[in-house]
Amino acid sequence: MDPNCIFCKIIAGDIPCYKLYEDGRVLAFLDVGPLSEGHVLVIPKAHAVQLGEMADEVAAAIGAVLPRLARAVSAATGTGAYNILQNNGEVAGQVVMHVHFHLIPKPDPTRAPDSKSPGSPGSGLGIHWPAGQIDPEAAETLADKITSALG
Amino acid sequence: MDPNCIFCKIIAGDIPCYKLYEDGRVLAFLDVGPLSEGHVLVIPKAHAVQLGEMADEVAAAIGAVLPRLARAVSAATGTGAYNILQNNGEVAGQVVMHVHFHLIPKPDPTRAPDSKSPGSPGSGLGIHWPAGQIDPEAAETLADKITSALG
Repeated sequence: MDPNCIFCKIIAGDIPCYKLYEDGRVLAFLDVGPLSEGHVLVIPKAHAVQLGEMADEVAAAIGAVLPRLARAVSAATGTGAYNILQNNGEVAGQVVMHVHFHLIPKPDPTRAPDSKSPGSPGSGLGIHWPAGQIDPEAAETLADKITSALG
Repeated sequence: MDPNCIFCKIIAGDIPCYKLYEDGRVLAFLDVGPLSEGHVLVIPKAHAVQLGEMADEVAAAIGAVLPRLARAVSAATGTGAYNILQNNGEVAGQVVMHVHFHLIPKPDPTRAPDSKSPGSPGSGLGIHWPAGQIDPEAAETLADKITSALG
């Protein structure tokens, strides 16, 4: 636990949250600055800044609960599409320096905002996808490097 | 296995890939349309379209390998920031209809493109974040709905 971390304070109960799920390793609650209705944060109880710092079993515990949460959020909001996003590092958009997975329902943007559809149509995560093409030779070298680093 | 699914064909070995990691439940390989150097896909071997359809133990297996992969990709590319993204449904940006987690290094955009820095500075995932503010009363109701759906 990091005494200056807002998520650690939420885990400790010193700051309230709209709690959705809790077990020995994981806590899930509503994001108070939602991108859409049903925007959920899923965090490890053990403080870690980036995903790469997490113990395998903690990351596994988060992984295990994501499908259940996704089904429950879809059932509650009626929105079948959603994004899972987890940012590491300031340049990657991380704001709170405690690992968190966003579960963000994506309402259909083609539905009119005044329709009876759930959520806020047109809201949710926006993605910019500047895809390149892989260079086969560089890819072989890179794959070797990564597999070596995996050990 | 879905015979028409490109990722199932990669798992079966009918389509080649730049393989990085494999175990009984999970396969990881380089994305051939990378957003940055070291863009990796992590997929379950069992075919599922959306995260919510996955068995807990398969999702746990993916969760468990993500930290190791993140460390290996950071070591190989020298890029310490990265995004994990997993899209569900066409309106959420899902293109291949087999669950896949993107691990996308985020090079520092403030570095000049001609510097010796690794990756392609300025590349990586682009995020648009139209955050709202939660309505306390609606949040209580929604949290109740989601926890009920969790059962």
